[in-house]
Amino acid sequence: MFVVEGVKNIGEVIKSSIKIKELFITEDFWPEATHIKKTFIEEKDLKKISFLTTPNVGLALCELPNYDENIDLSGLTIALDDIRDPGNLGTIIRLADWFGVAHVLCTKESVDMYNPKVIMSTMGSFTRVKVHYIDLEKYLKDYQGNIFGTFMEGESIYEQILPQEGILVMGNEANGISKPIEDLTTNKLSIPFFGTNGSTESLNVAVATSVILGEFKSQLAHKS
Amino acid sequence: MFVVEGVKNIGEVIKSSIKIKELFITEDFWPEATHIKKTFIEEKDLKKISFLTTPNVGLALCELPNYDENIDLSGLTIALDDIRDPGNLGTIIRLADWFGVAHVLCTKESVDMYNPKVIMSTMGSFTRVKVHYIDLEKYLKDYQGNIFGTFMEGESIYEQILPQEGILVMGNEANGISKPIEDLTTNKLSIPFFGTNGSTESLNVAVATSVILGEFKSQLAHKS
Repeated sequence: MFVVEGVKNIGEVIKSSIKIKELFITEDFWPEATHIKKTFIEEKDLKKISFLTTPNVGLALCELPNYDENIDLSGLTIALDDIRDPGNLGTIIRLADWFGVAHVLCTKESVDMYNPKVIMSTMGSFTRVKVHYIDLEKYLKDYQGNIFGTFMEGESIYEQILPQEGILVMGNEANGISKPIEDLTTNKLSIPFFGTNGSTESLNVAVATSVILGEFKSQLAHKS
Repeated sequence: MFVVEGVKNIGEVIKSSIKIKELFITEDFWPEATHIKKTFIEEKDLKKISFLTTPNVGLALCELPNYDENIDLSGLTIALDDIRDPGNLGTIIRLADWFGVAHVLCTKESVDMYNPKVIMSTMGSFTRVKVHYIDLEKYLKDYQGNIFGTFMEGESIYEQILPQEGILVMGNEANGISKPIEDLTTNKLSIPFFGTNGSTESLNVAVATSVILGEFKSQLAHKS
């Protein structure tokens, strides 16, 4: 089971194939959802069971979806090598949804997508993007297509043709992509630095993902 | 005065032209900075004065920099129409630094850049990017160049030539760009949605900024 909170997220779950076991609400925003068990509770009780500091209308107790073991990848897929920050994972799931990426592969050490902070920051996108926790190294070893990885010393995304099929690997917040996964990448990418004065930390991983996904779509649009 | 915390941020301030009034530290990571007043304190006292839950080495008390009233804009400038979230402002300042944007213009209602959460999330970039709090509407009225704004119904950034000079306006997290500012924009941009199944919230403002800045740089690279 996992918990979904907030009007927007609960609305998205109701529309999706995810099964809601029970809805605990202070107000019924979804009168059309007659097939769901609804329990009306007081504001003060919602505060007790909520993970939020200011809970909003209700909380849905949901059943964990059971995705196929066989992951059918086409187009672009994102793989995350030990992302630890819930906000980053949530933002990347939301980005995947926006850019039409159907699957996100995560190492087993990555933050749990059912962490309430992840669910909140996806703004409902977790109902559409399939997130798989797998042995990523083993999976990539058997994968036949392009494996893109981002590295400080990679080739500029603006100076190469990006094939529209493959797996884009993004690394851990502090350590980047681990050595065993790096060895499996076929294309080393980098986002060039345009600053004029002084050094800068690398970009945040969610922001870097957005720039790279944007450039994949840019090349697709300008080619057609 | 404002407070800067964390090894990375303090190191960046020491390298910058920002004046440090006093450094309160548990350990001296910067022995070369002999011109700065250093006060050694206990871990438990650092905990008391820090804004962080797990403070790191020390805290710098800095003097507010005094930027020129005349803002000399060239290339691309970012303008923020009432950004309220400290993490979003910090991320956008960090992005500006990465993409070579020298100035960020903010409405006076925007979150304060000297908010400790903003400073932390810039990862030192606040020492290089100049942030100005101004009457944005008045400023844009007098501005002669391109004023780009992002709107759901704007034209795809991938289907137009983006001039490399101008002001890119990004709107408030909940309400987008306000009507008076919208009326002053000369180019309406949008990031196309590539999702296949169902609706999605608009992208987070910092993520949208990164996609748009990336496309400006992409067009510059592919033109040359």
